[in-house]
Amino acid sequence: VADRSSRTGRLDRGYADVLHELTDASVGYTFGGRAPVAEVMPGDRLLLQTRDCFGGAVRTVDDLPSQVCTFPYLNPVTGPFHIIGALPGDTLAVHIISLTPTTGYGISSTFPHFGVLTSTAQTPTLQPALPERVWIYDVDPAGIVWYRARTSDFIAALPLEPMLGTIGVAPAAGEVRLSIVPDVHGGNLDTPLIRAGTTVYLGVNEPGALLSLGDGHARQGAGELSGVAVEVAMDVALVVDVISGYGVSTPRPRLETDTALMSVGLGRPLEDAYRTAHHDLVTQVAAVTGLDELDAYQLVAQAGDTHVGNVVDAAYSMVASLPKQYLHGASLYPGVHDRLRASRTSL
Amino acid sequence: VADRSSRTGRLDRGYADVLHELTDASVGYTFGGRAPVAEVMPGDRLLLQTRDCFGGAVRTVDDLPSQVCTFPYLNPVTGPFHIIGALPGDTLAVHIISLTPTTGYGISSTFPHFGVLTSTAQTPTLQPALPERVWIYDVDPAGIVWYRARTSDFIAALPLEPMLGTIGVAPAAGEVRLSIVPDVHGGNLDTPLIRAGTTVYLGVNEPGALLSLGDGHARQGAGELSGVAVEVAMDVALVVDVISGYGVSTPRPRLETDTALMSVGLGRPLEDAYRTAHHDLVTQVAAVTGLDELDAYQLVAQAGDTHVGNVVDAAYSMVASLPKQYLHGASLYPGVHDRLRASRTSL
Amino acid sequence: VADRSSRTGRLDRGYADVLHELTDASVGYTFGGRAPVAEVMPGDRLLLQTRDCFGGAVRTVDDLPSQVCTFPYLNPVTGPFHIIGALPGDTLAVHIISLTPTTGYGISSTFPHFGVLTSTAQTPTLQPALPERVWIYDVDPAGIVWYRARTSDFIAALPLEPMLGTIGVAPAAGEVRLSIVPDVHGGNLDTPLIRAGTTVYLGVNEPGALLSLGDGHARQGAGELSGVAVEVAMDVALVVDVISGYGVSTPRPRLETDTALMSVGLGRPLEDAYRTAHHDLVTQVAAVTGLDELDAYQLVAQAGDTHVGNVVDAAYSMVASLPKQYLHGASLYPGVHDRLRASRTSL
Amino acid sequence: VADRSSRTGRLDRGYADVLHELTDASVGYTFGGRAPVAEVMPGDRLLLQTRDCFGGAVRTVDDLPSQVCTFPYLNPVTGPFHIIGALPGDTLAVHIISLTPTTGYGISSTFPHFGVLTSTAQTPTLQPALPERVWIYDVDPAGIVWYRARTSDFIAALPLEPMLGTIGVAPAAGEVRLSIVPDVHGGNLDTPLIRAGTTVYLGVNEPGALLSLGDGHARQGAGELSGVAVEVAMDVALVVDVISGYGVSTPRPRLETDTALMSVGLGRPLEDAYRTAHHDLVTQVAAVTGLDELDAYQLVAQAGDTHVGNVVDAAYSMVASLPKQYLHGASLYPGVHDRLRASRTSL
Repeated sequence: VADRSSRTGRLDRGYADVLHELTDASVGYTFGGRAPVAEVMPGDRLLLQTRDCFGGAVRTVDDLPSQVCTFPYLNPVTGPFHIIGALPGDTLAVHIISLTPTTGYGISSTFPHFGVLTSTAQTPTLQPALPERVWIYDVDPAGIVWYRARTSDFIAALPLEPMLGTIGVAPAAGEVRLSIVPDVHGGNLDTPLIRAGTTVYLGVNEPGALLSLGDGHARQGAGELSGVAVEVAMDVALVVDVISGYGVSTPRPRLETDTALMSVGLGRPLEDAYRTAHHDLVTQVAAVTGLDELDAYQLVAQAGDTHVGNVVDAAYSMVASLPKQYLHGASLYPGVHDRLRASRTSL
Repeated sequence: VADRSSRTGRLDRGYADVLHELTDASVGYTFGGRAPVAEVMPGDRLLLQTRDCFGGAVRTVDDLPSQVCTFPYLNPVTGPFHIIGALPGDTLAVHIISLTPTTGYGISSTFPHFGVLTSTAQTPTLQPALPERVWIYDVDPAGIVWYRARTSDFIAALPLEPMLGTIGVAPAAGEVRLSIVPDVHGGNLDTPLIRAGTTVYLGVNEPGALLSLGDGHARQGAGELSGVAVEVAMDVALVVDVISGYGVSTPRPRLETDTALMSVGLGRPLEDAYRTAHHDLVTQVAAVTGLDELDAYQLVAQAGDTHVGNVVDAAYSMVASLPKQYLHGASLYPGVHDRLRASRTSL
Repeated sequence: VADRSSRTGRLDRGYADVLHELTDASVGYTFGGRAPVAEVMPGDRLLLQTRDCFGGAVRTVDDLPSQVCTFPYLNPVTGPFHIIGALPGDTLAVHIISLTPTTGYGISSTFPHFGVLTSTAQTPTLQPALPERVWIYDVDPAGIVWYRARTSDFIAALPLEPMLGTIGVAPAAGEVRLSIVPDVHGGNLDTPLIRAGTTVYLGVNEPGALLSLGDGHARQGAGELSGVAVEVAMDVALVVDVISGYGVSTPRPRLETDTALMSVGLGRPLEDAYRTAHHDLVTQVAAVTGLDELDAYQLVAQAGDTHVGNVVDAAYSMVASLPKQYLHGASLYPGVHDRLRASRTSL
Repeated sequence: VADRSSRTGRLDRGYADVLHELTDASVGYTFGGRAPVAEVMPGDRLLLQTRDCFGGAVRTVDDLPSQVCTFPYLNPVTGPFHIIGALPGDTLAVHIISLTPTTGYGISSTFPHFGVLTSTAQTPTLQPALPERVWIYDVDPAGIVWYRARTSDFIAALPLEPMLGTIGVAPAAGEVRLSIVPDVHGGNLDTPLIRAGTTVYLGVNEPGALLSLGDGHARQGAGELSGVAVEVAMDVALVVDVISGYGVSTPRPRLETDTALMSVGLGRPLEDAYRTAHHDLVTQVAAVTGLDELDAYQLVAQAGDTHVGNVVDAAYSMVASLPKQYLHGASLYPGVHDRLRASRTSL
């Protein structure tokens, strides 16, 4: 692994904290096709805000999303940020330091012909849409998200588990994609595993990578069953690094935590999301351990786990994961997560 | 819920332990179409053995399954057991008390054109099959399953987490299904959640239910990626109950543990397994809580979890789960799991 | 191809006409699991009747199928017929001589949670079912099937194109399958290509093959969009042959007409029905032409056609076809279709 | 239908023939994101050339596409053409007058991990790719396309049936999509039904519509089985109209011929392409006939047909069609096809 490196080497210069103040000009609805709103130096901590997926337009149970929002202008993302030194072919590592809901409440809803247990634009039927309904959750920073039924006094105290639904870079080959779409450039991945403590790896397609992010969730069940999580505006702290070198590419989003390596699979039908996640994980394990692919396949088959991201977006997402302990320290991005992780303690 | 009951009421008579000795006559390859091998009284503990999915024919890395086994005669199941008092329309509750691998080793393999990361009979291509290879795992009863690579000296110590791959009853309407097939009668569900401590609910189609089970795994990753888990022969201890009454039906397999209610979804493509699991869980939550379906949908969407069972069998399996704590004690089968669970402590 | 043959050779002995009179005893709801209703000699013409898919219970627009029928007891099939000389491993060739609707009318309907443009048991949603509605078609033997709207005076004259929805043999390995299910043994294939003039090839799994058939349609659009075709009772005339030999197997249903060779693919998702149909056709073309598989793949890719069977049943069906003219007379079953075809002219 | 109209009304002014000379500057690899290469007046005949999908880089069997082309720079499209008067919300009607292959040969190939009977990037496996191979077809303008096997002297004379694989407009909301991708804006639809005599309807998202087209095929089997048709450069003649008005929108590509109305469905899995095509056709039939949706569903179910487009691209395509004769002249776009069609006779 001597042939790859953290390009900037700036992590040892001491952190700077860069605060990006949110304005209308710093949000958009695409990956690609927009000019950077700021530059970010690898190693610096970037502090920013994200709007909720409705752009703040839903505040009460009477604000029906289909009336107060205009499709497809959902999921505003903050950015893009030009990452200094990131070049096509490099890998951008984004370590999430913290995610803090900011408004004290979260919003969920049904949305006409969107979600799993309804017919949709992609899976249409002649049945009328389910009723549109909004739920408001109290978000208690002590760690509770309060579910309250709309038609009875039933309540449930769910754990606060903040996550980012949407994170990505400019796509390859000049494509411009809506922020509600996930693909190999990232985008609306909608997996709870993109949370504080996780490092997200994304392949760089354009100079500066052009990182954008948004769509914070106070929590989300596996699959985002109803199409909408507990949507919140957030304060986000993150730190990035740029990995360059010969032979290391990041063809799809990958994740790393203190304990696990993960690959994000995307596709339809859902088994193709499962397949792409696991194909990437198996070939990655083979590459770093020297196991042949069959031995790596066997190891992941027995020791791996799978997390359902979304089963509602233009591409479904699933995450294949393997505990790092079985890899005896081997990694495609050696040391990167640990160094970025270290930056968290001092915030 | 006063209109349903444990039909036999025998759980308070004190347990008898019924040992079924395994012989060639007590295994078969179908659900349905076979005469009972024994009768079982609800409340009694049934102790039985299961053969591994290869019927014991694979013992070394040189025993290639495609040569020593004859498709489709895989996955021998022990049974069927006639459950006294079970009638069509009832629900059979099977509580797994313990699962104990018996041979000190487990077997895994690739199998030509079977698994996720290969073309298969259902998803064929013109590419040659992956090589067939067998792995032998040491199964340490202290709780470790040893992975050993075939092409290097790489090893990994994986946790022993025994599970039953296959459990089911006779199908409805006179159908006879291969034991390698999962469907609404149960069968080859291949989810790690069917383990000691879990109660499996199955709808009864034939008098006596005709319960069969087998396909023990020392452990299995999510999805059974390579098509074969760490296959073991097992000692199984279980206790059953029969639930009858007005208006409670069990149209597909459901699971209950001390902490969660779960529905098993089956289907292809994989999103249909996700859909059927969650549709059943949402309607079940609505039925027991009095929430309307939209409120139940919202609760499961934010508080539920999903576990990938298999992505290799004739129908894929996914399990939708909800922590019982959010339901404030409500249940379709009130008290059943707890009573069966109590029988575990005295084994 | 000298190593295979028509086992019986009886096609030159002159035809006998065997009339099987329909009674309640000669219909059933499964493939497998039932005793033969009659024996049939290869080469003899078998004349039989089939009931419509509702078993005749729907006669007016007020007979709602969900009320007058009992799921899953739909699709009664006539048979099984024991084909003399047919042994496991052989291929049964069934040539459809004629299909004649017998009642002067045909019935179609929606059915709750069945069809393509509705949620279903396999693809469930929380939406209510579409309304159940029955349409009665006049079937004019001169060749017209009259569509009449239920909510206006709109009419349309559609061509009469009789077909058999369901045809198959006993499954392998002792399985018993409902007649509404299609699989490699045949069953509810629901393709308009099974019509007069077509030879259906089915692999034999049990002695005597145990052929059953039913589910006549006066016509059907591609995909059986609403789940129900124009359902009719029928007079059926057919002739069978048994092909045995070394190395010719029929792992899935195949069809032959005067002009085309076809393979029936089955599966979910629908692309797997496409894949299995084309994989079978490509390997069949390679086998009979001596082309390597890539050259055969290329030929079918450019010269082949695809017909959508059903997109509603437990397995979807698609038919891959290739004009026989491109094969210069090569065939897996040389001469069989032509000989059986010749029997048609004299009816 | 008085509330809609051909906006320009120029079809009665007499045709002008506008020849667009192909240069490197007039081709690109995206829909959206590029400036118009020319303006076109509705009613004028536009004569243009398209390059083959390899951009002309494959000329012999030794030019392997993966070596001489650079993914994703395949499928060059000629355009975009600014259609005078086309505004967002309008419908662009493009009538194909003629398609004429220009080089005397066509090219097909396998391409690593692309096609149906191979694992792909979206459906990956651990198996090696199929061999890459190129086939050169002689294209005889008299109407024959000569298949020649690469590994034997087997030949087959296939009918010349020219079609356009790729046609579309700029996507909505500022998206930019690769020309190899099909979606609701059109793009790489890959259906043989886009041929001389067909009118293609596309919803307009950007002023001027920004029409681009390319990817001519001398012929293509249903599904584009191997991922590559018989690829040719073409001379294309077409004429466009712009339909505006109140309440007529074109949310996905639709086709019209002299005899049929058709809707193009796109999606994965393939049943979603079938569903979207038929949902659009059924609701369109209901809209123009006054039938309620159930009656329209029933009519299409029995009288409709389905054509498989591609089963290889980022979204699969299927075309649902209904003979116009059953609609008694009703149409969403009354008269448009006939007027454009009339322009063909005088070329």
